[in-house]
Amino acid sequence: MDVLLANNKPKAQAFLDEIEGKRNPLFIATIATTETGKIPGLSAAGANPDFTDFTPPADAELLLLGKCRSIQGVPITPDGIPTPALVTASALQVADIPVVVVNGGVKVKPQVPYIDVNGSPGRDIRTGDAVDNVEEVIERAKVVGEQLAKVSDYLVIGESIPGGTTTALGVLTAMNVDAHGKVSSTLPTNPHNLKADVVAAGIKAAAKKFGSFKGDPFKVVSAVGDPMMAAVAGLVIGASKQGPVLMAGGTQMTAVLSVINALDSKALCNVAVGTTRWVAQDKSSDICGIVKQFCDVPVLAADLDFGPSQYPGLRIYETGLVKEGVGAGGASIAAMAKTGGAVTKQILLKEIERNYASLMQLK
Amino acid sequence: MDVLLANNKPKAQAFLDEIEGKRNPLFIATIATTETGKIPGLSAAGANPDFTDFTPPADAELLLLGKCRSIQGVPITPDGIPTPALVTASALQVADIPVVVVNGGVKVKPQVPYIDVNGSPGRDIRTGDAVDNVEEVIERAKVVGEQLAKVSDYLVIGESIPGGTTTALGVLTAMNVDAHGKVSSTLPTNPHNLKADVVAAGIKAAAKKFGSFKGDPFKVVSAVGDPMMAAVAGLVIGASKQGPVLMAGGTQMTAVLSVINALDSKALCNVAVGTTRWVAQDKSSDICGIVKQFCDVPVLAADLDFGPSQYPGLRIYETGLVKEGVGAGGASIAAMAKTGGAVTKQILLKEIERNYASLMQLK
Repeated sequence: MDVLLANNKPKAQAFLDEIEGKRNPLFIATIATTETGKIPGLSAAGANPDFTDFTPPADAELLLLGKCRSIQGVPITPDGIPTPALVTASALQVADIPVVVVNGGVKVKPQVPYIDVNGSPGRDIRTGDAVDNVEEVIERAKVVGEQLAKVSDYLVIGESIPGGTTTALGVLTAMNVDAHGKVSSTLPTNPHNLKADVVAAGIKAAAKKFGSFKGDPFKVVSAVGDPMMAAVAGLVIGASKQGPVLMAGGTQMTAVLSVINALDSKALCNVAVGTTRWVAQDKSSDICGIVKQFCDVPVLAADLDFGPSQYPGLRIYETGLVKEGVGAGGASIAAMAKTGGAVTKQILLKEIERNYASLMQLK
Repeated sequence: MDVLLANNKPKAQAFLDEIEGKRNPLFIATIATTETGKIPGLSAAGANPDFTDFTPPADAELLLLGKCRSIQGVPITPDGIPTPALVTASALQVADIPVVVVNGGVKVKPQVPYIDVNGSPGRDIRTGDAVDNVEEVIERAKVVGEQLAKVSDYLVIGESIPGGTTTALGVLTAMNVDAHGKVSSTLPTNPHNLKADVVAAGIKAAAKKFGSFKGDPFKVVSAVGDPMMAAVAGLVIGASKQGPVLMAGGTQMTAVLSVINALDSKALCNVAVGTTRWVAQDKSSDICGIVKQFCDVPVLAADLDFGPSQYPGLRIYETGLVKEGVGAGGASIAAMAKTGGAVTKQILLKEIERNYASLMQLK
């Protein structure tokens, strides 16, 4: 299979062997938005900062309907690069993997059905008071994770949240994990210093409300996290009791890992992170360097290669733009695993090109 | 198996054979509330009319958590008889069948996760303008039905909506099905004339807004239906393309059948109604007499028998109170089918008694 073993190779291989050929995965797209995502220069998940409110609902629509309803076309970066949901949707389609959407907390509701876990959109983490209702959202998401894991062979849980690597840096830092310079970015140049400044301001402000975090994951997510984290942490904890869970994302998922590790470390036995080669081999971030600090969760990476694409808008992924999102890597791994490797990176690229041409209205 | 074949015996047997032994059903509890349910004398799904707003969310909580959060104890009739969700919860537990909740439109949100399909609570059908957004809810529910049917072997779709047999009579009447005196009731004496008066008022009022219905199911549900119907119709249409669907309910489900029949009659090929013996053999209603007028969908009935129970509150089901609700019959059939008949009516009764004693805090 076109899957790389990026961290803890023996466990990564064992996880891949366990899911290979399993016919019944379920993909969960967890969506959320925050004011953090609108800080200029942080996120490219939208043509401009105010558009980031529309990116997660539009991604959800693309996965469920094959087109967006909340916006025309599809979400793009300021450079016009299409959303990685295009990769996810293509992978899920080609392997006929079903999808549900979990609303972690969005400002603009998607025009498709979604699971409500009572989450709200996040505030700017520089307030030090970013997320409401964290414990309750985790509890509700646990129930969802448990029920959906019972009905499927395994869950693949992705995220769409603009600005998510900054909140990830916030949570990792507050959990005493050294993540400075290690979180990934959609942008051509990773704005590590801007992220660090935002996080430092958030942690300083949070001290007034929360005092010391003392490793309390509820406080940490409430202060400097985002609503996706609460939802995904609950989903994973609920699901991992029933079967394997592939957390589909890049360095954002390491922040969720740190939260789960603090809440219920046993849950991590059944968990792997599934991302893309572009994240796993990224020189401006270090996903494995984060994970290794506190757990032995394996990291797998879909060995995607858009170099041979006929479309410049896809070839540009090879320069390190976008890299990951909406569970693109994990969905690709699941598509390969479900088909026992019959879906290759070449087949996947053909499907992505077909959908890209159709959605971008190219010839 | 302890299942009766109540309508179209060959198709009913074929349906039962098809689901027997299948290990992966999924139960969907569709909840909604209406002002129709508060008309005095119509519904016993709550200790008094205003409590009917709390019954569906409390039922959903009971299924997912094993206890209610929106109310103390469990929903009861004015006579103190507990909600049939107790039967459903017991059946799902004993056979380890997972559950999701779909919010068709409730006034009081459940304190558990639910799937949102953009529905709103229903108005009193005497306004002739009872339900908003019917077509959109059906479209969104189709998406849910399709995705959840892909991940499961078959869906079992139940409802909790007080006053639902009156709105069923409304829709059936507007669809030119003779249902007078044929819809069921939770109450000791079925208030057929009151239901007929409410429906007649609704149809008269609707004529001003909608003119003739001309068999248009969107107009009919909008005028004299309820939000559960739109959600369940969409779920069934979306799911039946993927696999079998057991519509878990009594005469309310016949109204949904009439809606599906008008929208997409092919969808009914893969559908059965699953109810209880108390409905199938009820002398004050006639589920098969309704179904036969417009389709050949089989009706199965769980051969439940609470006569041997040690608890008067359960034995009273044998006198015809409650009869059905929250998919009690269909969930029981699914529990028996999943276990290849190993779950019998005796085993089910033991489980129900155990949960009843615990929830009612009996010794």
